[in-house]
Amino acid sequence: MGDNVVVSKMELERLLSMKGGKGEASYANNSQAQAIHAKSMLHLLKETLDRVKLGDADTPFVVVDLGCSCGSNTIKVVDVIIKHIIKRYESLGCFDLPEFSAFFSDLPSNDFNTLFQLLPPLANYGVSMEECLAANNHRSYFAAGVPGSFYRRLFPAKSIDVFHSAFSLHWLSQVPESVLDKRSSAYNKGRVFIHGADESTTSAYKKQFQTDLASFLSSRSVEMKRGGSMFLVCLGRTSVDPTDQGGAGLLFGTHFQDAWDDLVQEGLISREKRDNFNIPVYAPSLQDFKEVVEADGSFAINKLEVFKGGSPLVVNQPDDASEVGRALANSCRAVCGVLVDAHIGDKHSEELFLRVEQRATNQAKELLEKLQFFHIVASLSLVQ
Amino acid sequence: MGDNVVVSKMELERLLSMKGGKGEASYANNSQAQAIHAKSMLHLLKETLDRVKLGDADTPFVVVDLGCSCGSNTIKVVDVIIKHIIKRYESLGCFDLPEFSAFFSDLPSNDFNTLFQLLPPLANYGVSMEECLAANNHRSYFAAGVPGSFYRRLFPAKSIDVFHSAFSLHWLSQVPESVLDKRSSAYNKGRVFIHGADESTTSAYKKQFQTDLASFLSSRSVEMKRGGSMFLVCLGRTSVDPTDQGGAGLLFGTHFQDAWDDLVQEGLISREKRDNFNIPVYAPSLQDFKEVVEADGSFAINKLEVFKGGSPLVVNQPDDASEVGRALANSCRAVCGVLVDAHIGDKHSEELFLRVEQRATNQAKELLEKLQFFHIVASLSLVQ
Repeated sequence: MGDNVVVSKMELERLLSMKGGKGEASYANNSQAQAIHAKSMLHLLKETLDRVKLGDADTPFVVVDLGCSCGSNTIKVVDVIIKHIIKRYESLGCFDLPEFSAFFSDLPSNDFNTLFQLLPPLANYGVSMEECLAANNHRSYFAAGVPGSFYRRLFPAKSIDVFHSAFSLHWLSQVPESVLDKRSSAYNKGRVFIHGADESTTSAYKKQFQTDLASFLSSRSVEMKRGGSMFLVCLGRTSVDPTDQGGAGLLFGTHFQDAWDDLVQEGLISREKRDNFNIPVYAPSLQDFKEVVEADGSFAINKLEVFKGGSPLVVNQPDDASEVGRALANSCRAVCGVLVDAHIGDKHSEELFLRVEQRATNQAKELLEKLQFFHIVASLSLVQ
Repeated sequence: MGDNVVVSKMELERLLSMKGGKGEASYANNSQAQAIHAKSMLHLLKETLDRVKLGDADTPFVVVDLGCSCGSNTIKVVDVIIKHIIKRYESLGCFDLPEFSAFFSDLPSNDFNTLFQLLPPLANYGVSMEECLAANNHRSYFAAGVPGSFYRRLFPAKSIDVFHSAFSLHWLSQVPESVLDKRSSAYNKGRVFIHGADESTTSAYKKQFQTDLASFLSSRSVEMKRGGSMFLVCLGRTSVDPTDQGGAGLLFGTHFQDAWDDLVQEGLISREKRDNFNIPVYAPSLQDFKEVVEADGSFAINKLEVFKGGSPLVVNQPDDASEVGRALANSCRAVCGVLVDAHIGDKHSEELFLRVEQRATNQAKELLEKLQFFHIVASLSLVQ
């Protein structure tokens, strides 16, 4: 493999994270699009929450956000979930509420420090729940961070009422080994993503996605309480053909790909170095997703659909090409900068994202028109 | 108050932490003494664990370390606790074990990122528990980090089997307001710690300690399962007189105090700046501690004693005065450097700890002889 480092599954778990801290290219400052998408799906989330069985006041009601990252979106969504559940208790005339717990989970490399500092302080227990809710900027739930891969067990059996996961399940547990193996027909020569790749490469990705999703579902089915439900959103595609990765294809398969080629042509990195980097993302079709849920069999499908999610680029001045270019480079960097840094070092990574920005600036108008994400939305309830 | 900033309770919660990361003055690299002390008390911890009521296999067994900080000591102690409990189950002929959960809790300013990266990966659930235990460098429990003050609620009611807290309860929730108030008789003029201070100052500290400990106990009594137990270790003193703070007095009341006076005399900081900084630590006597446990009434005292804990200085070459000086400065900085940085800025803080090191180097022999900690050890069980 020459000087190339194969990022194994354990390595990826150790590395992968949205960019921490609060800087310009941090996830905390580049997740407005995710916030907008999440908002547009609130009614679907609430439909799922209406299906959750409410327990008695003696048992805590437990909510989990999987792939929480380190921005404020996760805190907002947990707040929405708990407030909605409280409303349901109250509409049943039940004012003796359970206590609430929320678990924020992501890989150990996630910047939990930044997340914990964003958490509002706990409202004083002992005062009434109404006072709790009235107290602005306080949370009415116990909070904990859980470091680990959601493709394995994270929680004790039968302990969770609601699982939520947004914009995370398209991250694979690893780049399939064959994709990094020169001798394999699935070797992704010349490319850093599967958009437009050979069929054998995309098949390896599809298989990895389905294996990972199967592990996810089997872990969750053990951890969920009877009567619990799950709301999942991830990148998806409308095309049947997995080599057309839609919005993800445009994000990782065009300017980002070209920027890698620039570095190779300028002699900054070797061809092998480029070919050995692959974005471990797969945007599944509805069918890809559904096959796994049905094969697992633990969950009833309340809803499983593809929704148009809009653009990942949030810009104030769409006519300002350089703002669009910067937004694309920052978006790209917030989600995969950590992996790029680890693969080619900070200096070359800096060069790479500069080129992404320049190329995106030159194609700003086209980017704004064409860069659209589709999302798979799944509402699943544990089969009793 | 001039240019002085009063560190309020919320401020202190936001700020206080052992020094994060893995640098020379980090807590991760300056907690060997705590590790040695913890080891010497393992038999007492195990006595406490023998009192815990074992539940059935369907309910997870839940362990909490309060004031976990970010080094490996917390991981080691949780490992000891869970292994001991598993042994108890097995000695009862019970091989259908519950799942185990561990919560690592500290203030939100704690470096949870470093802690999470030290956590061994979870052993594969699904394989037998024996394989789990046999697998070196794997953990056999679910792990979560809980950011918050242990002087308030942190967990749902009746959810915890074992609470452990080592070397944390001597940290007050705040410096008592009167101690920072020029108009108060408790104003700690000229001093940064209560060692050798006026009686009214030490009384304010004692009252704060007892109020805090009362809040701690009342929160834990709600959170503990029936049959649960608690093992607590904190700095203590043998003297009845609280102005004699023993080892803590020597650590914060001599060279550290002198170094602050140096900065004042050199004109680097004002007198008020110094007088407004106070270490929020109180080493209680057995009596101070016992009064609070008895007034609370929720816990039966299995053991409540003062133990000689040895020196906080771990040095390879006791004859090397400069190594001793550096060890003292690093110890001091690992535990209170973050507060000092916040109060006088990084540059002056650097100067301060340089002076601590110089002064300690000059008195290395005396320091090694005299710097001894005493610990209060409490084993408490919830009254049924």
